Amino acid sequence: MRRIVIALGGNALLRRGEIADARVQLDHIAQVAPGLAEVAGQWELVIVHGNGPQVGMLALERENDRALTATYPLDALVAETQGLLGYWLQQSITNAGLTGQIATVVTQTVVDAADPAFATPTKFIGRSYDANEAHGLAASHGWRVAADGDHWRRVVPSPGPVRVIESPIVEALLGLGVTVICAGGAGCAVTEHDGRLNGIEAVVDKDHVAALLADVLDADLLVILTDVPAVISGYGTPTAHPLGHVTVDEIITEHFAEGSMGPKVAAACHFAERTGRVAVIGALDDIAAVIAGTAGTRITSAAHSPTEDTHDVR
Amino acid sequence: MRRIVIALGGNALLRRGEIADARVQLDHIAQVAPGLAEVAGQWELVIVHGNGPQVGMLALERENDRALTATYPLDALVAETQGLLGYWLQQSITNAGLTGQIATVVTQTVVDAADPAFATPTKFIGRSYDANEAHGLAASHGWRVAADGDHWRRVVPSPGPVRVIESPIVEALLGLGVTVICAGGAGCAVTEHDGRLNGIEAVVDKDHVAALLADVLDADLLVILTDVPAVISGYGTPTAHPLGHVTVDEIITEHFAEGSMGPKVAAACHFAERTGRVAVIGALDDIAAVIAGTAGTRITSAAHSPTEDTHDVR
Repeated sequence: MRRIVIALGGNALLRRGEIADARVQLDHIAQVAPGLAEVAGQWELVIVHGNGPQVGMLALERENDRALTATYPLDALVAETQGLLGYWLQQSITNAGLTGQIATVVTQTVVDAADPAFATPTKFIGRSYDANEAHGLAASHGWRVAADGDHWRRVVPSPGPVRVIESPIVEALLGLGVTVICAGGAGCAVTEHDGRLNGIEAVVDKDHVAALLADVLDADLLVILTDVPAVISGYGTPTAHPLGHVTVDEIITEHFAEGSMGPKVAAACHFAERTGRVAVIGALDDIAAVIAGTAGTRITSAAHSPTEDTHDVR
Repeated sequence: MRRIVIALGGNALLRRGEIADARVQLDHIAQVAPGLAEVAGQWELVIVHGNGPQVGMLALERENDRALTATYPLDALVAETQGLLGYWLQQSITNAGLTGQIATVVTQTVVDAADPAFATPTKFIGRSYDANEAHGLAASHGWRVAADGDHWRRVVPSPGPVRVIESPIVEALLGLGVTVICAGGAGCAVTEHDGRLNGIEAVVDKDHVAALLADVLDADLLVILTDVPAVISGYGTPTAHPLGHVTVDEIITEHFAEGSMGPKVAAACHFAERTGRVAVIGALDDIAAVIAGTAGTRITSAAHSPTEDTHDVR
């Protein structure tokens, strides 16, 4: 059976400006679940989900907890979101008709403590605020904040993933026919020193971890699902147009927004370049067409012709 | 290799009255981890942990989150603690010298929606309060509260476990030599109707789930670790004495505290009676001796002689 890694945006579970009630997120997941259950019937499936809004909510709640003397580090909060969103996803995908087994594996992602990303936080987490609110929170909570479109949000360091500690377990479960949810929120960021793992204050990018996992697990296809139907070339300019099929060499020269489309394109390119296989970026709502190769932006290594790489005829 | 299920009290991770800071819990887990790593080298090991203090903390934080219109149901909060405590345990056990793989599997536990436990909440969660505080919180949050020793705490329904959805995955991982952390906080309570799973507002007892898992997984030994060295017969009376080896028939007539030693004894008896194998209740600090059969209270089925059941010579 062919193997697929799907990266699911945190926005698929909670959209900007929405109230983070459990019911709101469960309703979104119920929309996503049938498509994922169908994929799981045809592919060995790994699901990597985002957690930006959720980890931000937990961070704020924990900071406001007067019974504590210190808030929890981000690696711990990411672990909580892995439990929560993994549970909701596995239950909803089963309810949507998955006949096989599905498991959420709590995942640790090794990063390099010397990664320059620690000096320049870029990863948005949590709610949106207006500029005044954001700067107030930055002062009171020691946050770094940055503009995300019209609003402001907290930003945290996002070092690159070096290794996923639990990838052999994911591999073993896939081999047994189990659909695996893992590396939620990109996994808990840890450093590794003399075989010792230590949590570190960072949130890795989930698309980059999905690309790394797809490579390590020898996946046939990497699919990055988001809320837009395709990557837009020249975004915000008069020549803006959606990209269908592009090579890494063609797309790598263009600039995309940090913390938004930028990491998705970079992750897709990384996978395509390393493996010679196809990475697709497309809309969650088009999941079947994106996988079939008839929607989304397909990125292939320059060394491969489009025809060879059409993943629906592999 | 012999197979063991160890149930680890939530108090092993956070003691009564302690501040629930991450550092406090990580320090406790670092104390526990070497013993667990050693067991994992000798047995196929399943770890089931409690989460009373942690789920209580999350419930309170979520209720105080003004950005939400409703708090999260208990099944969702239990999922969060599975992620958090599973992450900390797997990392700490690796750091303590485990050479094999270890995985946390997010777990759902089926309960019967008609379980009479829903009418009579008995399971303590969260912090201790004095009587005034507790009754105030009961009024403002719609909680049920009950006395737990000298203090008061929130109580929630604790229906019996019917089935652990992910037990085949745990079985498969054990077969591959992976140490498994699962059913944390007894698993997320769900009801099952026409193959559909739905979260339900309850916290199952982790010792009962550990006993069910030990039975289903055909474990050789069930170990329930707590903060006292043995079960005390006649607790609080002049004839109080620790029990060494007892049969189910001998211990079943005695009354133990609900929400405390009661469920541990009942769970141990359930496993011993169903399987004819040994269940031990003992102190976390004595883990090696408890497993070796030289400490703790050993419970065996009446139908089996003590000699046959000495688990250290099995």
